[in-house]
Amino acid sequence: MSKGSLYIVSGPSGSGKDTILKEVFKKCPELFFSISTISRPMRPGEVEGEKYHFISKDEFLKLIEDDMLLEYNQFCGNYYGSPKKPVLDALEKGIDAVLEVDVNGAKKVREAMPQAVSIFIMPPSYAELRRRLSGRGTETEEVINARMKTALDEIARASEYDFIVVNDDLSEAVDDLITVIRSQRLLLERQKNIINDLLKNA
Amino acid sequence: MSKGSLYIVSGPSGSGKDTILKEVFKKCPELFFSISTISRPMRPGEVEGEKYHFISKDEFLKLIEDDMLLEYNQFCGNYYGSPKKPVLDALEKGIDAVLEVDVNGAKKVREAMPQAVSIFIMPPSYAELRRRLSGRGTETEEVINARMKTALDEIARASEYDFIVVNDDLSEAVDDLITVIRSQRLLLERQKNIINDLLKNA
Repeated sequence: MSKGSLYIVSGPSGSGKDTILKEVFKKCPELFFSISTISRPMRPGEVEGEKYHFISKDEFLKLIEDDMLLEYNQFCGNYYGSPKKPVLDALEKGIDAVLEVDVNGAKKVREAMPQAVSIFIMPPSYAELRRRLSGRGTETEEVINARMKTALDEIARASEYDFIVVNDDLSEAVDDLITVIRSQRLLLERQKNIINDLLKNA
Repeated sequence: MSKGSLYIVSGPSGSGKDTILKEVFKKCPELFFSISTISRPMRPGEVEGEKYHFISKDEFLKLIEDDMLLEYNQFCGNYYGSPKKPVLDALEKGIDAVLEVDVNGAKKVREAMPQAVSIFIMPPSYAELRRRLSGRGTETEEVINARMKTALDEIARASEYDFIVVNDDLSEAVDDLITVIRSQRLLLERQKNIINDLLKNA
């Protein structure tokens, strides 16, 4: 059996990335979605293993030491990372895996696994991005500008990705992401067994 | 505007390639389908410009001399070829073009246009291929074996292609071919304008 493919998905706040991934997950339950590990206590409403695995800082530092993370990051005193083993196990079994990371995390994963396919999700326009980041009109101009700067800095790195999905219409963006994943399964590399099996009988 | 992509589609007799392409054409009328030029007189029932453009042998030799063909072939005294200009015109306008050629034609087009994406359509198994090539049971073993040999020789060259579409279920094979075409439109190269437009406003 051929191995699975690894998909790196990134997108700035306002790209609708989380909503798209949720829909893709629903439509393609055969995909493995990597769950991040985080070194902070659970907050009310959070569920272990849903969006994060919660571990202690010492446990996290041990993961780093043992090279058990595809990428990690420190933010506000907490560590965030993507555990390596579950992803490699899925790929080995022929299961496609999806990893949601930011542009820096994507760079690290790409370096560690150059065969990974990366997809950047972006808003359709500057005006629409600003609208989405303005919330319900309760934010100050300053807060909105800071959010815009962060998002635009990420979009400036979209050209590091293999595929670009523009989220103008949600269901179209979901279909686009599925199209990328489905197309990779049709690549010669993934279909060689079928050719060889047919010719073996000749 | 970004340029269109060129898709080379091949598949042996029994792959269902013609039926698949007809369906893809119906579902994606925005695609340009290249029409072959042939140096023989029209047969009853044939329509100029439908499957072929009919020209004289002298006109064909002039096309070869003027380097106006992406690929050509001689078969039973007649010349067959793919005119270059309509394809290049479509690509220039940002229209994706589809070229149906055999494995030898595909090789020539790939050499002339290395950016072309090639797709090989194949039957799901040896047994099913044999069943499809046996017709309605009216053929001799000898005829069937000759057809099998031709098909298997082509399948042995499937690994020259970028993508492999297996035609087990027709509608799935149609979707697969459309998936390949749609995925290529999401490649960074084809989406760079959107990124640049958004950042230009920043």
